[in-house]
Amino acid sequence: MSDVSPLDLEGIRIAIEQARKSYSEGGIPIGGALIASPSQKILGSGHNQRIQKASPILHGETAALEDAGRLQADVYRHATMFTTLSPCSMCTGAILLYKIPRVVIGENETFMGEENLLRSRGVEVVVLNNQECKDLMKKFIEEKPEEWLEDIGEPASK
Amino acid sequence: MSDVSPLDLEGIRIAIEQARKSYSEGGIPIGGALIASPSQKILGSGHNQRIQKASPILHGETAALEDAGRLQADVYRHATMFTTLSPCSMCTGAILLYKIPRVVIGENETFMGEENLLRSRGVEVVVLNNQECKDLMKKFIEEKPEEWLEDIGEPASK
Repeated sequence: MSDVSPLDLEGIRIAIEQARKSYSEGGIPIGGALIASPSQKILGSGHNQRIQKASPILHGETAALEDAGRLQADVYRHATMFTTLSPCSMCTGAILLYKIPRVVIGENETFMGEENLLRSRGVEVVVLNNQECKDLMKKFIEEKPEEWLEDIGEPASK
Repeated sequence: MSDVSPLDLEGIRIAIEQARKSYSEGGIPIGGALIASPSQKILGSGHNQRIQKASPILHGETAALEDAGRLQADVYRHATMFTTLSPCSMCTGAILLYKIPRVVIGENETFMGEENLLRSRGVEVVVLNNQECKDLMKKFIEEKPEEWLEDIGEPASK
């Protein structure tokens, strides 16, 4: 694992906190945080809102972007996106739209997102292989498999 | 131009109506609509909300998805996304996430989105080259160039 700093561990902690908050609300436990560099200011944070707000577009990363509100292009271009789970194509696209140069991912075992697309566009991708993120998703998927499948655009299993 | 049906023209009309609504509110005039097939039910429609709601994630297409709310995977897989402007990477990613098989685009002269990525993943992309869509964007960009640049993640021009 390369280039993981203590600040990255703090960033993922904030994303995990959001994931836990979502779980405690009965929601999908995926969280995100957008953190500025070099100031380390938390620009925004949030979590999946599929169940809480019936939203198909508020994932961890997009919820963090929405929480941050309107930002100038330059702010995104010096920020890091933290997410507890490998970004789906929508969240990947949002990262590419705003040219966020770095993404720190809790884990990609539960779901492998568009990490190759991110890398192919020059985004630095760091995967932490974090056990807490994995455990939280495992527990949720055992409890509510259909909500999870819906979140990744897959039909409920037969 | 291939495979444009009267129903497509009706779909884009709904998206243009949303774009006009946004313009009348002082917002970015881009609209979207998600329409089921074969029922032709309008599942959702919406417009860019950057200015109205300070939202960096509610574009025409994502606003239409949000308006539609939670849908089963199969519904998306038989729907068409209508958008007045070529989809940015975020909206492209949302279309890919939900495996929407067809996208009808008003125009791509103002902004060329990720049409190649859509096609490379098997999505049918139809571009209408609609003058009304172009005129609306031209007027808005002349009036508020900085808001437009912000919406596509670009710095305000010097």
